[in-house]
Amino acid sequence: MYRYVAAATVGLTATAVGLTRPSTKSVLQEFKSNISSLFYYPEELEAANKWPNVGRLSITAKAKALTFESVADLDLEQSAIKRRNEIMKYGYPTMDNLKQLNDHVLAYSNVHKGPLWVCEHLTDYNINFNKSVSRSASKFVPDSSVHPMFRAYNSDFLGSGFDRGHLAAAANHKNSQLAMNDTFYLSNICPQIGKGLNRSKWNELEKRARALARKHTSAHVLTGPLYLPTVIGNEKFVKYKLIGDNNVAVPTHFFKVIVARTQKGGFILESYVMPNEEIRDDIAISSYLVPKSAIERGAGFMIFDYIADSQYCRINGVSNPAFIETN
Amino acid sequence: MYRYVAAATVGLTATAVGLTRPSTKSVLQEFKSNISSLFYYPEELEAANKWPNVGRLSITAKAKALTFESVADLDLEQSAIKRRNEIMKYGYPTMDNLKQLNDHVLAYSNVHKGPLWVCEHLTDYNINFNKSVSRSASKFVPDSSVHPMFRAYNSDFLGSGFDRGHLAAAANHKNSQLAMNDTFYLSNICPQIGKGLNRSKWNELEKRARALARKHTSAHVLTGPLYLPTVIGNEKFVKYKLIGDNNVAVPTHFFKVIVARTQKGGFILESYVMPNEEIRDDIAISSYLVPKSAIERGAGFMIFDYIADSQYCRINGVSNPAFIETN
Repeated sequence: MYRYVAAATVGLTATAVGLTRPSTKSVLQEFKSNISSLFYYPEELEAANKWPNVGRLSITAKAKALTFESVADLDLEQSAIKRRNEIMKYGYPTMDNLKQLNDHVLAYSNVHKGPLWVCEHLTDYNINFNKSVSRSASKFVPDSSVHPMFRAYNSDFLGSGFDRGHLAAAANHKNSQLAMNDTFYLSNICPQIGKGLNRSKWNELEKRARALARKHTSAHVLTGPLYLPTVIGNEKFVKYKLIGDNNVAVPTHFFKVIVARTQKGGFILESYVMPNEEIRDDIAISSYLVPKSAIERGAGFMIFDYIADSQYCRINGVSNPAFIETN
Repeated sequence: MYRYVAAATVGLTATAVGLTRPSTKSVLQEFKSNISSLFYYPEELEAANKWPNVGRLSITAKAKALTFESVADLDLEQSAIKRRNEIMKYGYPTMDNLKQLNDHVLAYSNVHKGPLWVCEHLTDYNINFNKSVSRSASKFVPDSSVHPMFRAYNSDFLGSGFDRGHLAAAANHKNSQLAMNDTFYLSNICPQIGKGLNRSKWNELEKRARALARKHTSAHVLTGPLYLPTVIGNEKFVKYKLIGDNNVAVPTHFFKVIVARTQKGGFILESYVMPNEEIRDDIAISSYLVPKSAIERGAGFMIFDYIADSQYCRINGVSNPAFIETN
């Protein structure tokens, strides 16, 4: 109902040296066209066109009428709280805009209109196939717990050329239809290259997380998008694409950090970054192992911070010389 | 001591149709060079060059030894808590990475290496000139309460062509040398165009905030950077520059929202967005008034959310027809 209204025209201003200096009107026209993406409601755009003296805040009242899904059963709620604590056992990377689902926890980015990070606890139980659970019964749906001003819609992805890539993988939640359905909220989704990534290399990485969970009884997995700098000429820029009317951000890269506790009490750590592009089949996923601290720097938060460095017995396939065995 | 190490070379890969397909080595080289900005510690870069099988987490231990300035006096601490509640009276836009200073409160962005928002409460008292307070006694300093991995340094700004622009303005805190010094932490600073913005139009806007505070006894001001989309060809992108070894982000725009309570109990709201570029002297600051909700959409958080829309008697210079007088 309330949808983004694209500015009809992008003002062109003559800025080359020697030309007449642009009129005030054209300077403002350009300024307005540059920030036109801010205007979410038709009323706002209309008000903006009457600059200066833009008023009328009543439109936000509509947006602020948030809807939340009700939690009916107290027992269910209690078990959900316990599950949340288990999933987040090794620390919350950030605390703003948290969302607890049946079997994963995420923080939402209002700026990028998608997840900031998604945390899962993979166990034999929840990754095990339950034949009453069907992936085809799950549908991608907008997350109504996200303020409409910051919400992504299926239409944003349509015709964009990107897959709706799950961060909490559907295949990690095969034991419960509710948990699987939860992974189809668009708050768990990023625009992701399909061929060579979502449908192959990234899928291979998701399988690696499940393999570690099976081998070591369980694994904690933190997954998220990255918006990394590139060098253009002699300068550094962050540049990423936006898709759809709601400006859903297309990450330049994705990270996945897997932590599994061995029987002897040490932790195995594997931390990956993959570019959001087609990756050739003949490149092993181990090529995309990077230090966890590098991911922390790019993402802007600490990952599994409650685990001390000395608790890792194995880091990205190599024995950790600083490992101290504890029970 | 621990400084960013730039990747020595940026790999060039032949991608044009018809050329030999790039070797695995060159594909990985390109991938590494694209994410090289993540590597903060020399040890990390060294480890990265040994890909695959990157290990060694012990380097983060150094980074995690954070230093905080101690609070010695309990009375001072009590009055600081009261002041914080007064400053943040109308709501916290976000809750992660908060920093309380003597006379302003800010949230820090680990990704952008600068403030996410800065909140001030301007009163006759704190904006009043105290002749024992000197601006020249204040020095720009890195904020040691920020994790070194996410910290900005003066060297990042040196030779960048940008001013170190205050978000909490120094001139708003002329009554206390401590409060003025606080505005010189780089956690309160963004790279800002000097000529035509920091030194003129933005300064004019800061004066407007103080004028509203004087007229109505006090004003709350929320200020922050924006990273807004631009259209390139038929596609939408967010693109912003990074400066210095620590990749300090250069905002595309800045916002300032001013709220002042009148004697009769209504609120006056003025909300501005200015581009981070030279603005001509003959353009009035009122040309940069935009709806508050537009800023909220771009910033990703709600601003002065505890004030209901019906409490505003005047919005961006226009009487609010929805205003309901309360006491």
